[in-house]
Amino acid sequence: MFKEILKNVQEKTPLVHCITNYVTVNDVANVLLACGGSPIMADDINDAEDITSICNALVINIGTLNERTIATMLNTGKKANALSHPAVLDPVGAGASALRTSAAFKLLETVNFSVIRGNISEIKTISHGSGTTKGVDADVSDAITEKNLDEAISFAKKLSARTDSIIVITGAIDIVADAQKAYIVRNGHPLMSKVSGTGCMLTAIIAAYCAANSDNMLEAAAAAVCVMGLSGEMAYDRLIRTDGGTSSYRIYIIDAVGKMNGEVLEGGMKVESR
Amino acid sequence: MFKEILKNVQEKTPLVHCITNYVTVNDVANVLLACGGSPIMADDINDAEDITSICNALVINIGTLNERTIATMLNTGKKANALSHPAVLDPVGAGASALRTSAAFKLLETVNFSVIRGNISEIKTISHGSGTTKGVDADVSDAITEKNLDEAISFAKKLSARTDSIIVITGAIDIVADAQKAYIVRNGHPLMSKVSGTGCMLTAIIAAYCAANSDNMLEAAAAAVCVMGLSGEMAYDRLIRTDGGTSSYRIYIIDAVGKMNGEVLEGGMKVESR
Amino acid sequence: MFKEILKNVQEKTPLVHCITNYVTVNDVANVLLACGGSPIMADDINDAEDITSICNALVINIGTLNERTIATMLNTGKKANALSHPAVLDPVGAGASALRTSAAFKLLETVNFSVIRGNISEIKTISHGSGTTKGVDADVSDAITEKNLDEAISFAKKLSARTDSIIVITGAIDIVADAQKAYIVRNGHPLMSKVSGTGCMLTAIIAAYCAANSDNMLEAAAAAVCVMGLSGEMAYDRLIRTDGGTSSYRIYIIDAVGKMNGEVLEGGMKVESR
Repeated sequence: MFKEILKNVQEKTPLVHCITNYVTVNDVANVLLACGGSPIMADDINDAEDITSICNALVINIGTLNERTIATMLNTGKKANALSHPAVLDPVGAGASALRTSAAFKLLETVNFSVIRGNISEIKTISHGSGTTKGVDADVSDAITEKNLDEAISFAKKLSARTDSIIVITGAIDIVADAQKAYIVRNGHPLMSKVSGTGCMLTAIIAAYCAANSDNMLEAAAAAVCVMGLSGEMAYDRLIRTDGGTSSYRIYIIDAVGKMNGEVLEGGMKVESR
Repeated sequence: MFKEILKNVQEKTPLVHCITNYVTVNDVANVLLACGGSPIMADDINDAEDITSICNALVINIGTLNERTIATMLNTGKKANALSHPAVLDPVGAGASALRTSAAFKLLETVNFSVIRGNISEIKTISHGSGTTKGVDADVSDAITEKNLDEAISFAKKLSARTDSIIVITGAIDIVADAQKAYIVRNGHPLMSKVSGTGCMLTAIIAAYCAANSDNMLEAAAAAVCVMGLSGEMAYDRLIRTDGGTSSYRIYIIDAVGKMNGEVLEGGMKVESR
Repeated sequence: MFKEILKNVQEKTPLVHCITNYVTVNDVANVLLACGGSPIMADDINDAEDITSICNALVINIGTLNERTIATMLNTGKKANALSHPAVLDPVGAGASALRTSAAFKLLETVNFSVIRGNISEIKTISHGSGTTKGVDADVSDAITEKNLDEAISFAKKLSARTDSIIVITGAIDIVADAQKAYIVRNGHPLMSKVSGTGCMLTAIIAAYCAANSDNMLEAAAAAVCVMGLSGEMAYDRLIRTDGGTSSYRIYIIDAVGKMNGEVLEGGMKVESR
């Protein structure tokens, strides 16, 4: 099934409008092209509504938010809803500052997100209204392990029921859940945490996957998570054959996303559902 | 002749002020260094006038424009004109939103651009006031082919006469035209469309080339187009010898721009004039 | 000693808040991860105070400053001082525009910086109130050479005494000075000047090094300068074994920062004190 999901992305070339942070925006643009989509960035309130109208999905990433762009996010999110475009929220650093936490909540009140993707600390903030986010990284004490996995899955399903959004929690083990069903993904490599923006990139890929598979978004999001994790593994295999470091690794990850196909994906994905 | 044009850039190290989008700005900075120029970015209205005064050329790229930076673009463009610096416009996404289209027109009314570079949909928007831009990519129905090439050249020449700007239309076939003469360039590789920012990079190179060859801007712009296209070809040749993908390709393109010299350029360029 | 300084960074993973330009911000984020730190970017005045509170150091880089972010820089700098976090100033382009020069002076009046890092033209502007900065590059006439080195060291020490900041002047020869003592570093490679952002990256590394070695900041800053320079050398050695150019070189530099360890550092650093 994931094979068809990937094929739909490559055939439909979904155009993804990103209101995203300026730290990782170039990687987000290039990974969207690599995965079979197409990016466009626009954050002025008078530009974003038109731009989202010609797109197939919207990413809202609050990584370097400011007062001006928060207004654009709220307004454009409503427009995406009106157009029935999938909207994906990446609450970067929610819990790390009052502004980020409040912006995330305002967005959740105003916009119906098809998917919310974050690390466990950010998602806990979304759920509980406060978190222990260590900057843009998850707090170690929050980490999802095999031991607390059932609990984490149950948490994700309940949050999905409450928000009516697919919840994607990424870390060493990834969870992709709606109210009824969760995919657990064990792809990826620890070195990915030494590359800035792997989360932002995944969020954008999820948006492209959901846009091209709008009647099957849970599986689309799970497939996107597998694609990113498997790309991280393939890139690592390539890295150790060269004398590269983390910056080469970043390049290789995007390369691997671009070379992914259905056979490789279904051969390499480590996914189960519960 | 193109050999001397390239040499002038490398000898004069033109300083190029870029008011450009935050998606591809790092590639623009690095490709300017690679081609023999030097970049400086400044977009605050109180900063940009001073900065442009110490530069040799100005790039205005509307890729992630906002109300604040539009004002800076207009003001700085006038200053560049007063200083007789070449100003180059990249109307990214003109036709895709009312704000982008109107900003492009305001810029054209206020500033004399030496060169306007865009894809065919953006340039049609500049000409007709509306377009069918698919986001930041050209609409397929607009594409310049061998069949409609004469028509496209005639269109470019007329638009050049009307705007008093050199018109650069990039795609599978590139056109560089003033009112009397057009260069047709057939360098480049289709994979370049899978790298975000190749258009933005070319616009910046054109500015550096025009600054260093201000009495010969049509040929300078044509040489810049050949440099970018040929770099794309050389990077592709290198790519297929490795196991890289589109992100490696982006790196290799900038590498190739930096290694370009007069002999390689004149040996590899595929250019004619009509 | 530098070996222990490096080890402290890798063990403490200092979180560095960067208010920095959007040109090189991705490289700054990735080089912070590579050197053993962790980055977070926030530039809204209502976000930055909270964010800096959870961090260990602050970088203020005025590369693409605007009215909004200048206010954030001033406010956040004061907060970092109140928290006794090391604050590092990178006065990019000070001397090139009235806004940049005045912003640099306002910052120096308002914030106590642990370190100020710039090229010689920027640092002369900091000292004299005016400079001959050629954009973001140093003016050749200002360059520190073996001939004027003693004079430059004396200048740096006096400026350090006056500003109560460690002064880092980078170029072919680097100087790291407080009022009493100066380290002279002769690592690095000329090709680094063809990569946008090596200065910005170094500034961020200095912040991470000072945060993890707060009782020994002069040596921490000197070690950071050695790490960056030596990484440039190692990256160059790797570059000439491949057919890469300046864009590959950028990747290789960040790779090398990530692979640096105490033995390699102490074996390769070219440092003396006067």
